[in-house]
Amino acid sequence: RSTKSNEELRDKLSDYHENDIADAFVRLDEEERKRLYPILGAEQVAEIFTYIDDPDLYLNELDLDKAARVISYMDSDDAVDVLDELDDSKQAQLVELLDEESSHDIKMIQSYEDDEIGSKMTTNFIVIKNDLTIRQAMRELIRQAGENDNILTVYVTDEAGKFYGAIDLKDLIIARENNALEDIISTSYPYLRDHEQISECIERMKDYAEDSIPVLDENDEILGVITSQDIVEVVDDEMGDDYAKLAGLTAEEDLQETLVESMKKRLPWLIILLVLGMGVSSVVGIFETVVAVIPIVMCFQSLILDMAGNVGTQSLAVTIRVLVDENLTSKQKRHLVGKEMRVGFMNGLFLGILAFSFIGLYVWLLKNNPVSHAFIISGCVGLALMIAMVISSLVGTLIPMLFHKIKIDPAVASGPLITTINDLVAVVTYYGLVWLLLIDVLHFA
Amino acid sequence: RSTKSNEELRDKLSDYHENDIADAFVRLDEEERKRLYPILGAEQVAEIFTYIDDPDLYLNELDLDKAARVISYMDSDDAVDVLDELDDSKQAQLVELLDEESSHDIKMIQSYEDDEIGSKMTTNFIVIKNDLTIRQAMRELIRQAGENDNILTVYVTDEAGKFYGAIDLKDLIIARENNALEDIISTSYPYLRDHEQISECIERMKDYAEDSIPVLDENDEILGVITSQDIVEVVDDEMGDDYAKLAGLTAEEDLQETLVESMKKRLPWLIILLVLGMGVSSVVGIFETVVAVIPIVMCFQSLILDMAGNVGTQSLAVTIRVLVDENLTSKQKRHLVGKEMRVGFMNGLFLGILAFSFIGLYVWLLKNNPVSHAFIISGCVGLALMIAMVISSLVGTLIPMLFHKIKIDPAVASGPLITTINDLVAVVTYYGLVWLLLIDVLHFA
Repeated sequence: RSTKSNEELRDKLSDYHENDIADAFVRLDEEERKRLYPILGAEQVAEIFTYIDDPDLYLNELDLDKAARVISYMDSDDAVDVLDELDDSKQAQLVELLDEESSHDIKMIQSYEDDEIGSKMTTNFIVIKNDLTIRQAMRELIRQAGENDNILTVYVTDEAGKFYGAIDLKDLIIARENNALEDIISTSYPYLRDHEQISECIERMKDYAEDSIPVLDENDEILGVITSQDIVEVVDDEMGDDYAKLAGLTAEEDLQETLVESMKKRLPWLIILLVLGMGVSSVVGIFETVVAVIPIVMCFQSLILDMAGNVGTQSLAVTIRVLVDENLTSKQKRHLVGKEMRVGFMNGLFLGILAFSFIGLYVWLLKNNPVSHAFIISGCVGLALMIAMVISSLVGTLIPMLFHKIKIDPAVASGPLITTINDLVAVVTYYGLVWLLLIDVLHFA
Repeated sequence: RSTKSNEELRDKLSDYHENDIADAFVRLDEEERKRLYPILGAEQVAEIFTYIDDPDLYLNELDLDKAARVISYMDSDDAVDVLDELDDSKQAQLVELLDEESSHDIKMIQSYEDDEIGSKMTTNFIVIKNDLTIRQAMRELIRQAGENDNILTVYVTDEAGKFYGAIDLKDLIIARENNALEDIISTSYPYLRDHEQISECIERMKDYAEDSIPVLDENDEILGVITSQDIVEVVDDEMGDDYAKLAGLTAEEDLQETLVESMKKRLPWLIILLVLGMGVSSVVGIFETVVAVIPIVMCFQSLILDMAGNVGTQSLAVTIRVLVDENLTSKQKRHLVGKEMRVGFMNGLFLGILAFSFIGLYVWLLKNNPVSHAFIISGCVGLALMIAMVISSLVGTLIPMLFHKIKIDPAVASGPLITTINDLVAVVTYYGLVWLLLIDVLHFA
């Protein structure tokens, strides 16, 4: 086609938001995209790539030189995400072709572990010296704004290059030229350290509610910033992770996942649960004789086990969120354990009485048992239900606290252990009560 | 104390971030705080209140006039959050005392339902006409920046006052004075509608990754904006909600919750589960005779039920996240159901074989049964396990889809129903198989 129609197309595309272009982009075929790349230009392609889920697929459609130019226009953290998806040789080739600054930034970000805050930062920020005048600061901002678009907070360093404070762009804009720069610098601005664990600082980032937070190295030099877009992403990831783990998945899944990937995420937990479940089965086996004598009691096993499991999961979920959200003192921990047990007891009392009444009626009227026998059986169910619920609440609170204390992620490790302990407790309590009361004491059979 | 020491204190406090002052603030006693309020002044108190969890408690320490001044300095959405915590008469008194603009904004935001995006917006934003020059635009920005600090995006309206587009502040700052304003207005800027459901637009807000998004009424007039801080909050709330619901809580809980509040959040689900569990028990009752004849089979009931439950929860969690994240075509839905069933089948096959082998060995060697009988029993366990896992995957995928279709929140309604169906399926499959194979066909007993 002629240059003119390219011009028109470019003009037309500029009316759309990059996120919308990105949506359309992935629906085109390779030929069409290859025609589009030169029309869009490296800068806009870079922008569009940040809105695409798997930009590495499309990066491969560009020759190396152009791919490198696109990458150099991306925010350094986004660039790292893309590069990590490419195979090692291609990655090395591309980094080789980048300008020195981009390649330095990318290598630095890649040097952090995935769970360190350094891996999430971008080097796109504005920094000025603290000895400038308001006018000089404004001029410096305009100069740097061409390359860095996180301008809402202007970072300030002292003469030694150490982090000194931050200026809210609003204050810089409305400042009078003869004001001192010092007056608008906030020296109490929060910061993060490059090697901090993301899970450790996520609450702080949310609490300070700033549009960006600087990341410092051990010499107090600014390496990069975490923007509020990064915070949205980090919060979303962390919560999604907790959610997945509560459901017994090792990580979040999406629609594109292959069968093998899904199996890999689900099988580990299922195998552990199967093995632990067999352990529970062998304990149930001890009570085989009880069931052989009074078969009706086995009807309510599933009820008690399910309820204990549900209560344990509720306590687990509450405890994990509390552990993630706050740094608890030991007094607060005792308070939490106490509260969970009280909730477990009150709920257990209520549900135990419900179960006692309804199951008693059922066994008496529908299963044709003598009324006294019926209510002794349902009494065992109700009592076992209550005890199991209290203990499940306790286990569901203590186990994640224990894992948290020994620095194992409680969201991963707690589930299977709690299920197993709760099953065991419920089975032993229930059949133990039946054995004791119905067989040993009342000679029911 | 003298004014001088107040001056010093004010100076000292200005070195701290408001979030840190807020942390200290809640640890002071009422006397100390009352001394601090006048030193800080209404504007800074307003700022500090936005960092406190329950600012309404402290607002009551101020007399009405001062409380009203503090509220008028808060972002309108934060102000609404505080007012909603006060009792109605106090609320009305305070709103009465506000300046007209604040009271208009607050009444508008209060007019939206909690799940509408209008309830989350702030009226703190900059808006200019599209017929200004660059210089006029800059001057207008400086004028409005004193009152509104969300300045990173400058919104533009046309001559009729309708939303026209947005200007990235960076572009305004680096623009030359003789450029046309039109050149830097992005007319494809995303927007939300005031009555949109938050859950419906949350993915869009994340996708567009803008620092703020305008909220328009049906006449395309800008009512307010959603800032990226609001997005962090909304994402956090929504995910926390999904998380809580997966665990069978009606809402997220925190440490401060009272016993009664916790019980209220947990009991509804537990009561439903108890009732449904009694239904399952009565179905198990049908197989009482099977257990009476071959008691050993009851040992493995908990295993099969637990595994079916786990698989169902995994499928449920995956399906709910997919439903929340994306608008599925019916082809994608069939794909998801197909994939979940394949994963269920493959995992079930693997675990079924494991269970068959190990349980066979256990029943043969440790329970002293003839080898053939042992492996027929463990064959029933393995086969039931596999069938239960496939059906649980299917149920765990279809039920939330069904609820989603009929516009019931699948995260709330799916759990109890899936647990019950899976328990029933597992019980009927397992004992049914035992009955059929061991008793009817093989005359095992």
